[in-house]
Amino acid sequence: MELKDIQNKKDKRGIDIQKVGVKDVQVPLLVQRKNAENQIVNAKARMSVSLDKNFKGTHMSRFIEVLNDFSKSNIFDMYPMMENLKNKLSAKFAEVKFNFTYFIEKKAPISKITSLIGYDCFFKAKLNENNEYKFYLGVKVPVTTLCPCSKEISDSGAHNQRAIIAVNITYNRDNHIWIEDIINDIEKCGSCEVYSILKRRDEKYVTEQAYKNPKFVEDVLRDVVLAIEKYDNITSYEIEIEAFESIHNHSAWAYQKKVLN
Amino acid sequence: MELKDIQNKKDKRGIDIQKVGVKDVQVPLLVQRKNAENQIVNAKARMSVSLDKNFKGTHMSRFIEVLNDFSKSNIFDMYPMMENLKNKLSAKFAEVKFNFTYFIEKKAPISKITSLIGYDCFFKAKLNENNEYKFYLGVKVPVTTLCPCSKEISDSGAHNQRAIIAVNITYNRDNHIWIEDIINDIEKCGSCEVYSILKRRDEKYVTEQAYKNPKFVEDVLRDVVLAIEKYDNITSYEIEIEAFESIHNHSAWAYQKKVLN
Amino acid sequence: MELKDIQNKKDKRGIDIQKVGVKDVQVPLLVQRKNAENQIVNAKARMSVSLDKNFKGTHMSRFIEVLNDFSKSNIFDMYPMMENLKNKLSAKFAEVKFNFTYFIEKKAPISKITSLIGYDCFFKAKLNENNEYKFYLGVKVPVTTLCPCSKEISDSGAHNQRAIIAVNITYNRDNHIWIEDIINDIEKCGSCEVYSILKRRDEKYVTEQAYKNPKFVEDVLRDVVLAIEKYDNITSYEIEIEAFESIHNHSAWAYQKKVLN
Amino acid sequence: MELKDIQNKKDKRGIDIQKVGVKDVQVPLLVQRKNAENQIVNAKARMSVSLDKNFKGTHMSRFIEVLNDFSKSNIFDMYPMMENLKNKLSAKFAEVKFNFTYFIEKKAPISKITSLIGYDCFFKAKLNENNEYKFYLGVKVPVTTLCPCSKEISDSGAHNQRAIIAVNITYNRDNHIWIEDIINDIEKCGSCEVYSILKRRDEKYVTEQAYKNPKFVEDVLRDVVLAIEKYDNITSYEIEIEAFESIHNHSAWAYQKKVLN
Repeated sequence: MELKDIQNKKDKRGIDIQKVGVKDVQVPLLVQRKNAENQIVNAKARMSVSLDKNFKGTHMSRFIEVLNDFSKSNIFDMYPMMENLKNKLSAKFAEVKFNFTYFIEKKAPISKITSLIGYDCFFKAKLNENNEYKFYLGVKVPVTTLCPCSKEISDSGAHNQRAIIAVNITYNRDNHIWIEDIINDIEKCGSCEVYSILKRRDEKYVTEQAYKNPKFVEDVLRDVVLAIEKYDNITSYEIEIEAFESIHNHSAWAYQKKVLN
Repeated sequence: MELKDIQNKKDKRGIDIQKVGVKDVQVPLLVQRKNAENQIVNAKARMSVSLDKNFKGTHMSRFIEVLNDFSKSNIFDMYPMMENLKNKLSAKFAEVKFNFTYFIEKKAPISKITSLIGYDCFFKAKLNENNEYKFYLGVKVPVTTLCPCSKEISDSGAHNQRAIIAVNITYNRDNHIWIEDIINDIEKCGSCEVYSILKRRDEKYVTEQAYKNPKFVEDVLRDVVLAIEKYDNITSYEIEIEAFESIHNHSAWAYQKKVLN
Repeated sequence: MELKDIQNKKDKRGIDIQKVGVKDVQVPLLVQRKNAENQIVNAKARMSVSLDKNFKGTHMSRFIEVLNDFSKSNIFDMYPMMENLKNKLSAKFAEVKFNFTYFIEKKAPISKITSLIGYDCFFKAKLNENNEYKFYLGVKVPVTTLCPCSKEISDSGAHNQRAIIAVNITYNRDNHIWIEDIINDIEKCGSCEVYSILKRRDEKYVTEQAYKNPKFVEDVLRDVVLAIEKYDNITSYEIEIEAFESIHNHSAWAYQKKVLN
Repeated sequence: MELKDIQNKKDKRGIDIQKVGVKDVQVPLLVQRKNAENQIVNAKARMSVSLDKNFKGTHMSRFIEVLNDFSKSNIFDMYPMMENLKNKLSAKFAEVKFNFTYFIEKKAPISKITSLIGYDCFFKAKLNENNEYKFYLGVKVPVTTLCPCSKEISDSGAHNQRAIIAVNITYNRDNHIWIEDIINDIEKCGSCEVYSILKRRDEKYVTEQAYKNPKFVEDVLRDVVLAIEKYDNITSYEIEIEAFESIHNHSAWAYQKKVLN
């Protein structure tokens, strides 16, 4: 017996839906690394398509089917998946976002011992009616910030803290940017970088480095703007900095966004 | 001895900062209720101003001073606070967002026993260079959704689940909208409303009510659009629905936004 | 027509249930302050009772009724509510936990400007078969910690960060301890206290104070142990310290618990 | 020049510290699967050791070194890592906990289409002074629960919702239990299992299955107790069930723990 397809019923409210789909689907995915083999990441996916005003509902199980079909492919380029999603759901517009932790090996500054840092990242892609593809890369980069005011007015020491620099960028499909490169540039914008392993001689270095290089969240933001605008293939950016102030129970915060062309 | 004001130093990078300030400041605030005395809410505040390219930093402690000055006033109209913030920080632009839980008394459908439901809400206000004021109200409304497909194809029963309808609206200052009214309208858009206390005769009612009134997230979204567009003073809206599917470990999700005028 | 009471049906699996009830019920409550009027807090409640092996289910709506009955009373002493809950659910054992943010006014160290800090707290109470009452108070206290190693080995500066000291204590009903007092004692155990407003002269003070007073999480833990053991009415404690290291993307962490008598 | 080892300084407060170490270290790890190759999981680690009253501090960087040393090994048996940690930190006691998402392939009930579900799991191990090893396995299993009361009293339908069954068990090292097996047993204790992909014929099945098999959180808890007690190598357990009620904005909740031998 055929089970009725309620989703295909005609809807009379006359409202085109912009995005409908699934959220918080957990899935392992392959991400292409720079100069290294693929990394398996654990992603949370949000996938959606547009829905024409004439139809009551979309077909939710097909989103998971598309996800399954691409779970063994490298999702660094999301275009094939997006095209597949649009076709399978007969939709004009599709959007997919993957949030995941991406691990990068990092050397301690003096001892050169390597260890991993996990960075919260996202990939987001949109494909519209005219098959125009837009890709967004998001990275969250922890750094140390040391307060210039505190250093200036105090006889010794200066308050410092972990801060998170969140940067979202868009860039053209034919000119992609490595996660490793963008994180590397952003890490240089704090008072000092953070590391997973620091031996005593490393700790001396990062302490003194931060003290020599005091920065407000405003300074970090401006330096990130300068770093990002050096990429001539970035078409828009959004920057958010949150410093978990060591002297307060709240954060210092700064935000900037810009469409470049 | 005068302590140097590092923040006032000249900056040479030539970058106007769009938003800088404080985040996650916890504070109790007064909110005007409809037909009732003020409610004390526990808010998390994010407050920011623009910063001219010529200055190194803003003055973070002044944000908390403004918050303290207004902590005994009703913040339903945020205009006076915004004006004060712009002046105190000599800024062209100011933005403040308060996230809080707002309690509303609700009667069970049959027994009429009253109890409270806490709704996650936010107030956000912007005041620009020309003193143009923009206010945003956000509410998150839990409802039940019962799946039309599951009902249609099954011999008995139908899967249902809690869903959250998040609605953010903007409206003109001289024509404000009560939290109570907008929540009341949104609650009618699910398969059934949710309650804190339900005696057996109430539970019978909500179960049967949901079963009679199956809705996909697409249906909920379209009905919320219709409900919101009835308000002629709303100037833009954003709607997001997430249904925590009882048959999956992920959510169904829908999203719509529109600028009305 | 009488609706059947399924919960009262006999269960044959022979298993006494230790705790069953409701979780994440949001409710405003009154808490008695030291030397001040009551504070309205926004609590999340978890309420449970034991269930005899002979019964299929407890009666969930009665938990909310008890909560409503006590929402206008001061819940500093939870005994009356616990007794009521046990009776209403015909249970041998009852447990209630309220998590909430509690605001305390604090003076900046030099300018003496007052502002509020919100502390995450909980009250938990148990009442057993023999009407033995046990009360737990939990507080989370933010402080600054400055690293003794970093200070010692570096030519200037020292890394520091916000740390959270979580302390849970039990004490006898007839000899209660004020939230204000226990928080005050714990705040002295970091390298320096944190504040919501700090003017420049205050910031100089807290920076220098932390630098003079370096502490590992181990030092903080031992000082909190000494501070807590001074109270002769505390019968057990649990201490957890997490320092959000400014030089790492992970935390330093320490933990201790003890039953005193 | 030798940098001073502040951690090794003598402490005079006379307090043995029970646990001190690092928290929220992100790291990819290998977990042995049943009848399949290893799975790479993204873990958050908390690692700690005891600290003798005579020493000021532990050596934080060594925890990360141990983690790095074992990041390529299968951590299903944590004993070697625990021994290494105790030795490297000269500690009497060590404890390590890894939280991670573990993916298992699951077939839809009728269509037999396979897809992955991600389960939140943890491994925790303790190694004490006498080299007694204790291992804890934690799993969180989503299921559907359908309310027996709602079904009984309503003319049609019954409220149902996603519930999470969290089970923590300990078992002997020489007699280990597969994650796959324990999850499989727990999934049978709800009204119905949940899946990532359900085609219409599957959705019909799970809807009817849940309706035929109504369960309170009390029923689920008792059935999980019976399922767990069938394992004769489990030495203690802790069970927690939270059902995200579709008719309320709060959860139903139940809890049980037992030491078996």
